[in-house]
Amino acid sequence: MSKITPQSQNFSQWYLDVVQVADLADYSKVKGCMVIKPYGYRIWELIQRDLDSRIKEAGVQNVYFPLFIPESFLTKEKDHVEGFAPECAIVTHGGGKKLAEPLVVRPTSETIMYDTFADWIQSYRDLPLLVNQWANIVRWEMRTRPFLRTTEFLWQEGHTVHATKEEAETEAHRALKMYEDFDRDFLALPILTGKKSEKETFAGADYTLSTEALARDGKAIQAGTSHLLGQTFAKAFEIQFQDQDGEIKYGWQTSWGVSTRLIGTIIVCHGDEKGLRLPPRVAPYQVVLVPIWKTDEEKQQVFIELSSINNKLTDQGVRVYFDDRENLSPGFKFNEWEVKGVPVRIEMGPRDLKDAQVFVARRDTNEKMAIPVASLGSEIPDLLETIQENMYEQAKIFLEDHTFEAESVDEMVKILDDKGGFVKAPWGGTADDERKLQEETKATIRVIVEEKMKTKKKCIFSGNETDTLVYFARAY
Amino acid sequence: MSKITPQSQNFSQWYLDVVQVADLADYSKVKGCMVIKPYGYRIWELIQRDLDSRIKEAGVQNVYFPLFIPESFLTKEKDHVEGFAPECAIVTHGGGKKLAEPLVVRPTSETIMYDTFADWIQSYRDLPLLVNQWANIVRWEMRTRPFLRTTEFLWQEGHTVHATKEEAETEAHRALKMYEDFDRDFLALPILTGKKSEKETFAGADYTLSTEALARDGKAIQAGTSHLLGQTFAKAFEIQFQDQDGEIKYGWQTSWGVSTRLIGTIIVCHGDEKGLRLPPRVAPYQVVLVPIWKTDEEKQQVFIELSSINNKLTDQGVRVYFDDRENLSPGFKFNEWEVKGVPVRIEMGPRDLKDAQVFVARRDTNEKMAIPVASLGSEIPDLLETIQENMYEQAKIFLEDHTFEAESVDEMVKILDDKGGFVKAPWGGTADDERKLQEETKATIRVIVEEKMKTKKKCIFSGNETDTLVYFARAY
Repeated sequence: MSKITPQSQNFSQWYLDVVQVADLADYSKVKGCMVIKPYGYRIWELIQRDLDSRIKEAGVQNVYFPLFIPESFLTKEKDHVEGFAPECAIVTHGGGKKLAEPLVVRPTSETIMYDTFADWIQSYRDLPLLVNQWANIVRWEMRTRPFLRTTEFLWQEGHTVHATKEEAETEAHRALKMYEDFDRDFLALPILTGKKSEKETFAGADYTLSTEALARDGKAIQAGTSHLLGQTFAKAFEIQFQDQDGEIKYGWQTSWGVSTRLIGTIIVCHGDEKGLRLPPRVAPYQVVLVPIWKTDEEKQQVFIELSSINNKLTDQGVRVYFDDRENLSPGFKFNEWEVKGVPVRIEMGPRDLKDAQVFVARRDTNEKMAIPVASLGSEIPDLLETIQENMYEQAKIFLEDHTFEAESVDEMVKILDDKGGFVKAPWGGTADDERKLQEETKATIRVIVEEKMKTKKKCIFSGNETDTLVYFARAY
Repeated sequence: MSKITPQSQNFSQWYLDVVQVADLADYSKVKGCMVIKPYGYRIWELIQRDLDSRIKEAGVQNVYFPLFIPESFLTKEKDHVEGFAPECAIVTHGGGKKLAEPLVVRPTSETIMYDTFADWIQSYRDLPLLVNQWANIVRWEMRTRPFLRTTEFLWQEGHTVHATKEEAETEAHRALKMYEDFDRDFLALPILTGKKSEKETFAGADYTLSTEALARDGKAIQAGTSHLLGQTFAKAFEIQFQDQDGEIKYGWQTSWGVSTRLIGTIIVCHGDEKGLRLPPRVAPYQVVLVPIWKTDEEKQQVFIELSSINNKLTDQGVRVYFDDRENLSPGFKFNEWEVKGVPVRIEMGPRDLKDAQVFVARRDTNEKMAIPVASLGSEIPDLLETIQENMYEQAKIFLEDHTFEAESVDEMVKILDDKGGFVKAPWGGTADDERKLQEETKATIRVIVEEKMKTKKKCIFSGNETDTLVYFARAY
């Protein structure tokens, strides 16, 4: 088993090592595209299953739109095409012939969907239109890292149309809240939420709401976004409806999404020196069973007992892996499952068998404890709950310990250099100011604090008087 | 609500009407690509959920490989590239620049996967390698029809590598059996299975096994295929392993898949004059509740009772839709849900309420019966089972009634012209003979009968003596 670089020594290399050694993904020969391996893909399936039920609960239905977008669709909305054109992959030939019009491989589906929405929507009775799609997306990236930034990635994109701005805003915030709840309850991730600055707003949107997590290296990571698109696209694609008052109006729209980047987020926010740590809800295996034996007789007895524990826990809905491989030592297995982040390891040897107990090791705290076999059925599900909550608490404390305030750029830079994290500071600058600040400090505005200050302060960059606070961070 | 063309009058137009009016899919502005609407996509999700659990039960794990394939990969296997190159969509530009090597949008993933498999497989301990992916596929098609043949479609593709030919053959047959079971138990579809002729074999495979269903217009439809790839790709991509005996050997491979074409298969095999008919297991809604009322008081009472029935059935795991739309007549709703193929309709009006009963209409037989409200909880789940079985029986009888034998081309053509269906006949011709026969008769060999004849007969086309029987049909 390959070693992983210590996190404290080189976080970027640690990350790449974890992805490889924990068997999450592999490089492919296609520039910027990864292969998601079974262990990594299973995490994505668990994310999909939980999030999809939250999406459906909100009355949003799944659909599937074409992978290809006629180039002329993309250019219909000025800001949108400016934002995405540089990142597009273009199909110029199909079926052995040059195409009359090149096709763009979807970098996001607003334009291809909204062209059809215009046909679907005629009357207020057709609203709200609430759809979602799970799909692959292509954005040509120069510097890629598995899960965090890849040329092709998997995501879900929700797209809604409403009769009024108010309803659309409510939906954009509902989606944000859904992500916030999901991040907290399922991924054990505390996050900051709020509006993005103008510079970071989705190309074509009125505003963008974001969920921002904090990696263990002190960098922020955008985990999901929800956009109020307003009427920008409705006007470009003629999405009009006859309202109850008989008037023809443009629809109000939102779109929102999360991607396989969430897997990268889990790694950078929960990982430690030993590798990946998975919150139980998103763990392909929640419990791994490792037998210890010397003689054949011992092996047989331990295997029988562990098989019975395996069945019992599996029946209770726990995801268990019985590591019965014979050619590997217990120590090798311990290490492998630690790198892979399995929340609970159960070990049993001949003496444990005699004592009718097992040793249980927690991945989140490294604690080890003896538990009688008879009480595993009640204790393991409880323990998984405890670990899920504890991992959230650990991440929450880390986030709180790495949230600071600053009243000058120097102060902010010192904090970010020393400790990383989020720095709350007054901001009254322009998008251009933000660009300049980023060049100088590598920090960007992650979200704008919703509540305004009662007493105005000086913007840390422009010096303008402002009532607005923002969170800065260096980010993925 | 738009009318649908009678099936008996014009089956092709009937099909297109059903797809539109039942709200399954819509045309897009991208040539040959469709939009799968919520009702159609829900059918695909139900197919995925059931089939995915069968795939996982067989020990196959899900993965995700890149959408793009370097052109040089595709050309590594001669037959494969000949088969697929004419259908490929080609990306020539990415990120604003011309690519050094064009990328093919995957028409199937053998080549991109197997290049990586060669890295993953070193020893017999790494075998069998059993993976599957749910993905979108692009094949440039000249003549398209929603679900049946589209430029982009969704599918699953299983890919396995084994140490011996025998194991690979067992796997290819396991996959075929899995599809056969799934078609029968989930889609209520009886099918013919068997090997394809050389002409219809997957490009690069040793042989192809197929599942063939029979549409109501008498045409065959290929529903799924499983290929023994042998060592063809292993040699092209250097998939080698050190066996237990210390020798370096090439792996033996299979691949197998079904696609959104299954939705088209359901439509053409189960549909009738009124539109779609869905077997309960694959129906987004298994039961629709339609209230009937005149006065507000009646409405209120009927709604209360139907809500309670809705809750009761939903709690039992039945997928129910309470059609409480106020601006539409019951007759309109009846028609709409019939077109959409919902297996069971429950109607309730004021008199039924008084009698503590509902009227239940079966979509499969058009029967209507009164059922006491008190017994719905037990009767509806049973009825859904009955309908599932009956639809299979209906399709089985249709298949049996449309399976014929012939000993000459003329006899076969007469049968196909008059009734359609499968025609079993002796065959000893070449791939070229099959091509000629198809030109003359529009019939192709669907599958080869496994059992050989004890007494040889004359091939209906070449006149050669042969012990082989095949099933001919005109096909989708």
